Amino acid sequence: MKATINGKKRDIPAVWWENGKVAAIDQTLLPEKVRIARFSNHKQVAEAIKKMIIRGAPTIGAAAAYGIALAATNGKNLEKAAKMLRQTRPTAHDLFYGIDWMLSHKDDPVESAKKYADKLVERCRKIGENGEKLIRNNSKILTHCNAGALATVDFGTALAPMRIAKRKGRKFFVFVDETRPRLQGANLTSWELKEEGIDHAIIADNAAGHYLKSEIDLVIIGADRISRNGDSANKIGSYEKAVVAKENGVPFYIAAPITTFDPSIASGDAIPIEERDQSEVLMIGKQSIGPKGAKALNPAFDVTPAKYITGFITEYGILKPSQIGKTRK
Amino acid sequence: MKATINGKKRDIPAVWWENGKVAAIDQTLLPEKVRIARFSNHKQVAEAIKKMIIRGAPTIGAAAAYGIALAATNGKNLEKAAKMLRQTRPTAHDLFYGIDWMLSHKDDPVESAKKYADKLVERCRKIGENGEKLIRNNSKILTHCNAGALATVDFGTALAPMRIAKRKGRKFFVFVDETRPRLQGANLTSWELKEEGIDHAIIADNAAGHYLKSEIDLVIIGADRISRNGDSANKIGSYEKAVVAKENGVPFYIAAPITTFDPSIASGDAIPIEERDQSEVLMIGKQSIGPKGAKALNPAFDVTPAKYITGFITEYGILKPSQIGKTRK
Repeated sequence: MKATINGKKRDIPAVWWENGKVAAIDQTLLPEKVRIARFSNHKQVAEAIKKMIIRGAPTIGAAAAYGIALAATNGKNLEKAAKMLRQTRPTAHDLFYGIDWMLSHKDDPVESAKKYADKLVERCRKIGENGEKLIRNNSKILTHCNAGALATVDFGTALAPMRIAKRKGRKFFVFVDETRPRLQGANLTSWELKEEGIDHAIIADNAAGHYLKSEIDLVIIGADRISRNGDSANKIGSYEKAVVAKENGVPFYIAAPITTFDPSIASGDAIPIEERDQSEVLMIGKQSIGPKGAKALNPAFDVTPAKYITGFITEYGILKPSQIGKTRK
Repeated sequence: MKATINGKKRDIPAVWWENGKVAAIDQTLLPEKVRIARFSNHKQVAEAIKKMIIRGAPTIGAAAAYGIALAATNGKNLEKAAKMLRQTRPTAHDLFYGIDWMLSHKDDPVESAKKYADKLVERCRKIGENGEKLIRNNSKILTHCNAGALATVDFGTALAPMRIAKRKGRKFFVFVDETRPRLQGANLTSWELKEEGIDHAIIADNAAGHYLKSEIDLVIIGADRISRNGDSANKIGSYEKAVVAKENGVPFYIAAPITTFDPSIASGDAIPIEERDQSEVLMIGKQSIGPKGAKALNPAFDVTPAKYITGFITEYGILKPSQIGKTRK
């Protein structure tokens, strides 16, 4: 992804190997500052994952793989390093996947970690190439949350088609849902698009419907988990946008690698919805909203039934919801 | 409305006449503090309207009427006072309506102003009585923005049925959209419901769809302007909630006095949408969101087509959209 560092535009991933160290964009400082953090041992990497300096499930998986590579080059016990890294963020599936990959590819740990990250990026690049055809000159696109390069080492999922279309010279406009409660749209997606030179505006999540009725001609978002029938769990608010998009005849696409499809789940009803702490709603940074003692409900995800989804942009092409059950990892 | 002041629960309107002065809840301090501001001349009232110590179109109209009453009791020129009050908030229709009412009812200015405010409150009370039947024990209601007592001197429009149902002993739960960008739901509606002892939770606007699909059985919101065919302009986000409510078979009601119906407008297409300053999206209190130089779009309202509206709760009863064209003020 493009990132301006000390006034210079560079093209860097979210995490990478550099001169025997692991380097990563410090995501806690975005969008105010772009600072590269560097780690010389796996403990520092574990700490960075815990503190969300490194975030986004696929990026965390790659960082953990690089962490194991650091342990190997430092002559440390890999099983012990793996144990420490596993304890950083207990719910991110990619974290365990990345660590397990390293433990079964020990011959050249640095090369293995690079390969792991490269594969991830390659998948996203293909999603971008498969999806970019949907974007025409003057397209007006809606996206929600951050399914961007920061979360997937590079390119992103929902943002990958936009990156590729932009690099091919197409001109289009992106409406970026600010994405309350955690504001990933305003803080991360807007930053990625700005660095990429893609014209866009942040909108309150409430304004998406108004623009779906009047201007938007394409929706692309990411997904956290997709069931066998195509029902898709994604950031809270995705369901609303999907319903309003369909009502207005606006195509609604989900961009996700095939690893996001979970063939063990028959339909969205079986996807559990995480209820997160109410402070995410009641506090915006240091700003408190609501009266003293106010209560909030804070579901982190919602499920969009397959009938609202036009297609899935994957590394293997654009699939219809009816094709999902037939696809295996 | 109920309000706890210095630990004591009182029942007060948003603005009223008290011992030769105008008293009002200082709305700039809500929801942190309930302070009663008092004004002894019309200049102070004008200043309070300008500074949004007094806000909400109908409440502003009543405050201006009381301001004229102050000018009269202070022996000031009423036309001059009217001119000053008219210049406070140039877009609020009720402001001019309240002032004009006073200039044509000069016999007993204090009584006239009280009568103006009382009529307004009476309308809202009737909306409450007509709407409360929609609320059953264990109802789960969604509301958006603040169509409450603060904005209408007392009772409110959307909140009036909830107040009356609560006072009749019914138990129900309200999902309060925080209502970005200005957070009137989190800051004002949540405060009013808390004071009234109505069980509720604040949700991110994004979460409304999820709960409409799973739990909510009734939506009641206000409106800013309703066209002859029933299309309704209201706070940005209302349209999205209406579409998702209909998709899930959840009745969607708009509570509004007959003065909100504009028979001069044939349909919602003719209702202009105010675009407000982007800083409302990019700043939350003193907290800035988005990268430096970020742009935002900030439509203040959207239009909900009549086909999504189950009915209008008015002081004359609950009307179907098809009955609107036949109603005249």
